[in-house]
Amino acid sequence: MKVLVAGAAGFIGSHVVLCLLESGYDVFAIDNFSNAVEGPDGKAESLKRVSELTGKDIPFAKCDLRNEQEIENLFTTHKFDAVIHLAALKAVGESVDKPLEYYANNLIGSLNLLSVCKKHGVKNFIFSSSATVYGPPKELPILENASTGQGITNPYGQTKYMVEQVLMDLSKAEKDWNIVLLRYFNPVGAHPSGRIGEDPLGIPNNLMPFVAQVCIGRLPVLKIYGDKFDTPDGTGVRDYIHIMDLARGHVSALDRIKKAKQIGCEIYNLGTGKGYSVLEMVAALEKASGRKIPTEMSVPRPGDIASCYCDPSLAYEKLGWKCEFGLSEMCRDLWNWQLNNPQGFSTAAGPN
Amino acid sequence: MKVLVAGAAGFIGSHVVLCLLESGYDVFAIDNFSNAVEGPDGKAESLKRVSELTGKDIPFAKCDLRNEQEIENLFTTHKFDAVIHLAALKAVGESVDKPLEYYANNLIGSLNLLSVCKKHGVKNFIFSSSATVYGPPKELPILENASTGQGITNPYGQTKYMVEQVLMDLSKAEKDWNIVLLRYFNPVGAHPSGRIGEDPLGIPNNLMPFVAQVCIGRLPVLKIYGDKFDTPDGTGVRDYIHIMDLARGHVSALDRIKKAKQIGCEIYNLGTGKGYSVLEMVAALEKASGRKIPTEMSVPRPGDIASCYCDPSLAYEKLGWKCEFGLSEMCRDLWNWQLNNPQGFSTAAGPN
Repeated sequence: MKVLVAGAAGFIGSHVVLCLLESGYDVFAIDNFSNAVEGPDGKAESLKRVSELTGKDIPFAKCDLRNEQEIENLFTTHKFDAVIHLAALKAVGESVDKPLEYYANNLIGSLNLLSVCKKHGVKNFIFSSSATVYGPPKELPILENASTGQGITNPYGQTKYMVEQVLMDLSKAEKDWNIVLLRYFNPVGAHPSGRIGEDPLGIPNNLMPFVAQVCIGRLPVLKIYGDKFDTPDGTGVRDYIHIMDLARGHVSALDRIKKAKQIGCEIYNLGTGKGYSVLEMVAALEKASGRKIPTEMSVPRPGDIASCYCDPSLAYEKLGWKCEFGLSEMCRDLWNWQLNNPQGFSTAAGPN
Repeated sequence: MKVLVAGAAGFIGSHVVLCLLESGYDVFAIDNFSNAVEGPDGKAESLKRVSELTGKDIPFAKCDLRNEQEIENLFTTHKFDAVIHLAALKAVGESVDKPLEYYANNLIGSLNLLSVCKKHGVKNFIFSSSATVYGPPKELPILENASTGQGITNPYGQTKYMVEQVLMDLSKAEKDWNIVLLRYFNPVGAHPSGRIGEDPLGIPNNLMPFVAQVCIGRLPVLKIYGDKFDTPDGTGVRDYIHIMDLARGHVSALDRIKKAKQIGCEIYNLGTGKGYSVLEMVAALEKASGRKIPTEMSVPRPGDIASCYCDPSLAYEKLGWKCEFGLSEMCRDLWNWQLNNPQGFSTAAGPN
């Protein structure tokens, strides 16, 4: 089975490609380098390392999904059996400041990709969605049948909700599509080799890359946004999931599509089901690194909620998938990646 | 003030252009003819008649909003002060069957148009939204602050909801936009001259064009979808609004943008505030035409609701706009149009 992975050079993409290759899938990778380092040869540094780790070549094309003709050319040259669509702008705060850019990139990209898929009869489709589609949870843990679309406070989350809606309507209209929506909780960590990991451009938007950069001295101090939430220690609680577990979830979804005749549109939470607070995450990385992480208490950001974690049992039941890694592995592998790549993919690796 | 009207050749567009010209606005009209008759000279038949009625030339370009370069060329050649965006696929049932086409057309078109507007600093924007964004109403009459986005049963309505969302987020991020979302209820009728009116391609999707075509003998019988709703006579109740009142609403919105310094994003219901049932509408057209309209009772369609009508008082308060025409004028003018153009714009006018 030949799988097109869109957004393959990013944090999630590179780990997904690795897991696909290790599971025997053929991969064709595309990325527009909007959030990944392009090597001098026009290839993705992250995917070169995946090639090293797996011993396999990874066919790659630079491709921007906003340009339908580029996708069309790709589908004319290659025959794909399935698509894993991870390509999106994903910085929550930036999306509030640049809504048009986010809507245009994420919606137009997805719609162009789907139009070309339909035209070429490629109807096995896995979409990277997000826990943000639930908005502020009414009940915890969050189940897949919880309501979506209400109270989403940023355009990034809206684009995920909207593409989900498109895919659900498409599946209702055309029964021969097999669509899986994977709702990610908070992916962290890195491949245990320390060769690939999260490499945010600029100041990290997510907690753990930020914590890791404070830990290694690239950033001075971690601001914690609020300690008066209704949680055990007052700081926000989230469902962190090891990137390798998350990546394996895509393989499980693809296995299901391959085995099942017709699944319509299925939705799965990908999380551990456990919530950890900001302070717990900081403590865990201090333990993994043996270093002290300076923190500073600040006020809550608008829209921030106290707790968010899922019930991942549906994915276990239907996909046979569950998380294998816990908090200590997440922090061990994050730290290993950070220590060996203090400047991410941009610099030669070397311990700090 | 020079106003770009996108979707200008359609039912609503042609009447909006007429009202704009009569109110002293300069108009530049575009359409892609996806749902309007193109004359042998590449111009819109409907707009030619608007020219006749107003005695004014209407600059026109065939333009498809899915092609961003076409829009860019237009904005490079002309200097617009405001945009009225009416261009969309709008057949509810068809949108369920062809979701990708609807999402791609309505979302990509809107996003392209907004990107070009932003680039050229054209930040006065009126968008044709719809009562469908409310989903099944929880309370009647519907006020603008009622919840939106939940229970929308078709992609057409979803695209209206999504573009509203984009515009609201855009307005939050960039305070120098003046955006008005006009939520149409059910536009019917025609210009009192009988020269322009609704000319659906194929079988009409909306009640009144269908009724009119039955009345004139183009269609054999009107199917009524359900008479067991919780309404006075059991048939569905909707808020029908005369197209001339609706069109004037756009002028009022533009007047407000012109006068006010900075309005952000404002939302107005455009409806009469009165609900009429299917049977009342049929009876009213029978009266206006002096003809008997054959009907046949059928079962409700999935997703159909009993009643939907708005409270339009906000538009009166802020825009000074209210409906001037009632049910009898709606039917009089619809019938006048139908009688003089039994085949719509495709044939020379002549009484049937």
